[in-house]
Amino acid sequence: MQQWRLAAIPQGIPQDSDFTWESATVPTCPPGGLLVRTHLLSVDPYIRGRLNGVKTYVDPIPVGQLLESSAVGTVVESQAAGFAPGDFVVGFWPWAEYAAVPAAAVYSLGPEPPLPIQHYLDQLGAPGMTAWFGLTEICQPKAGETVFVTAAAGAVGFTVAQIARLLGCRVVGTAGTPAKVADISKYCDAAFSYRDEARFAELLATTCPAGIDCFFDNTGGPLTDAVLQHMNPFGRIAVCGQISAYNDARHDIGPRPFLPILTRQLRVEGFIVTRWRNRFPEGQQRLGEWLRAGKLHYRWHEYSGLAAAPRALRGLFTGENHGKSLVWVFDHRPEPLFK
Amino acid sequence: MQQWRLAAIPQGIPQDSDFTWESATVPTCPPGGLLVRTHLLSVDPYIRGRLNGVKTYVDPIPVGQLLESSAVGTVVESQAAGFAPGDFVVGFWPWAEYAAVPAAAVYSLGPEPPLPIQHYLDQLGAPGMTAWFGLTEICQPKAGETVFVTAAAGAVGFTVAQIARLLGCRVVGTAGTPAKVADISKYCDAAFSYRDEARFAELLATTCPAGIDCFFDNTGGPLTDAVLQHMNPFGRIAVCGQISAYNDARHDIGPRPFLPILTRQLRVEGFIVTRWRNRFPEGQQRLGEWLRAGKLHYRWHEYSGLAAAPRALRGLFTGENHGKSLVWVFDHRPEPLFK
Repeated sequence: MQQWRLAAIPQGIPQDSDFTWESATVPTCPPGGLLVRTHLLSVDPYIRGRLNGVKTYVDPIPVGQLLESSAVGTVVESQAAGFAPGDFVVGFWPWAEYAAVPAAAVYSLGPEPPLPIQHYLDQLGAPGMTAWFGLTEICQPKAGETVFVTAAAGAVGFTVAQIARLLGCRVVGTAGTPAKVADISKYCDAAFSYRDEARFAELLATTCPAGIDCFFDNTGGPLTDAVLQHMNPFGRIAVCGQISAYNDARHDIGPRPFLPILTRQLRVEGFIVTRWRNRFPEGQQRLGEWLRAGKLHYRWHEYSGLAAAPRALRGLFTGENHGKSLVWVFDHRPEPLFK
Repeated sequence: MQQWRLAAIPQGIPQDSDFTWESATVPTCPPGGLLVRTHLLSVDPYIRGRLNGVKTYVDPIPVGQLLESSAVGTVVESQAAGFAPGDFVVGFWPWAEYAAVPAAAVYSLGPEPPLPIQHYLDQLGAPGMTAWFGLTEICQPKAGETVFVTAAAGAVGFTVAQIARLLGCRVVGTAGTPAKVADISKYCDAAFSYRDEARFAELLATTCPAGIDCFFDNTGGPLTDAVLQHMNPFGRIAVCGQISAYNDARHDIGPRPFLPILTRQLRVEGFIVTRWRNRFPEGQQRLGEWLRAGKLHYRWHEYSGLAAAPRALRGLFTGENHGKSLVWVFDHRPEPLFK
């Protein structure tokens, strides 16, 4: 089988030379665990933060170790009660075609997942839970308030924008390319490009005439600086991502935000979705209902083949990817897999 | 009588030429209100923010208007029920020897205040309420946690540090001069000078070996940048003041704090004490008990004469003042006042 190993600590946006593509032996099924075949990998911005060799809220992936991420696979061999070969499982394992995983680290979708498996890494997975709990618990939007969302074409932001609309808010989103701005405009009351830096103050004044009550920030940088100047008193800011800073945190310099935080009495909170781990079923229930009712839309940027995984990661930072970034490793239909 | 008027929008630290010292006629008692004689004025850092001609959480003091602040005075003439000549009142009025005030804007201490009147502008006034509610409501410290307080020799910080100790926390404070650092060391577990910028990382590591759980920030600037790197996961930051930025907000540039806020899951909240206005009696009760029990200490930097008021304000920013800054206008003993 094939797999990806970290070759070097990336400088800036990860390059091909930072990863090693290698052959390996398929692992054996661990005692009490599972051998899974990888179908779909999730590629998310936070992964970049694990490549710097520095501990943050998760351990870094050291040079020489396998990359890893959320994934969906099928059970090839099971030594765990409740899992049978052919069952689809959702969990977290290496960027490899096969993986040995502890049963406690995955949950089963059974042999025929109720929904296409992409959903379990998107709105029913970490991005969806991040959107739901981050927005409702940190921003606590009330109907009629203005919610501002950065990276609103990304996996988290696209869901945040739609949830905020479903909760009765006025929603303004940003994205990079004209195509993405046009796309999110269908789900937001207004949208503009974060590349239009010289016009931020004007664009914020135009699109948020009543000011901003809730700010769900995925990007950071100069746009965040500008948004702070448009927050209403007692506004809430959920710091979900800082994708503008992930590749070079040392040069993330700008106006300090504390004076607007003080004078506008803002509450700013950073969060990692795992803090609500025990409440995921509640969030999955809510988003699942909206999905099945056709009220929640999704965008998937799907790469084909495990070999493309580093390119998928890079695409998060270049603006290439639109929507949830996914890498197909094996076809997800059971028939050709277990013929 | 004499009074102070704003002559110009100050550039940087306010200068003498920014204020006009002028004679005026003693006002008449307003219908249903009071004519008060000013005994003591409170001089606080937030006043600087009102001199820029820009609305923040309070209206600016426009050029040509009288300066104003919290004050204690005695009633000279009363047209309001419940107030008699000679009663001490606490309120908010111009930097003038006499003022016409609405009865609803003051509260009475009666003819013989239970405590020296300085207390009513310090720990039983806005600085004390700021310390009590800011610390307990925003930082929510738990016994055993580490609380870091900037400007711990100032009116608010000195009280925050002592309350945190009384609540069972380990407290580390900063101040400017060696004399202030030595003084706050008596009430903190450790203290150092905010002027020692090159050694912040080392000083924080030494004085806060278990990291920082609660950060009560009165200053902002490079020290705040450094403290962010020492916060523990789920730490709480109360943004109470940004005295380092008040005189020149345009150049308050530094590392953006959002990446540490995100990865450490910090909650940062700016606040103005008036949000708890209805709960002041509760805070005054608690701090009053500690004061009477000798458990809460205070430092007063007292200027003599209304003429000194601009100098008192300037002293907040030069580091000259130590403790609560107060300006005596008339002697506070009733006898010589109403002879």
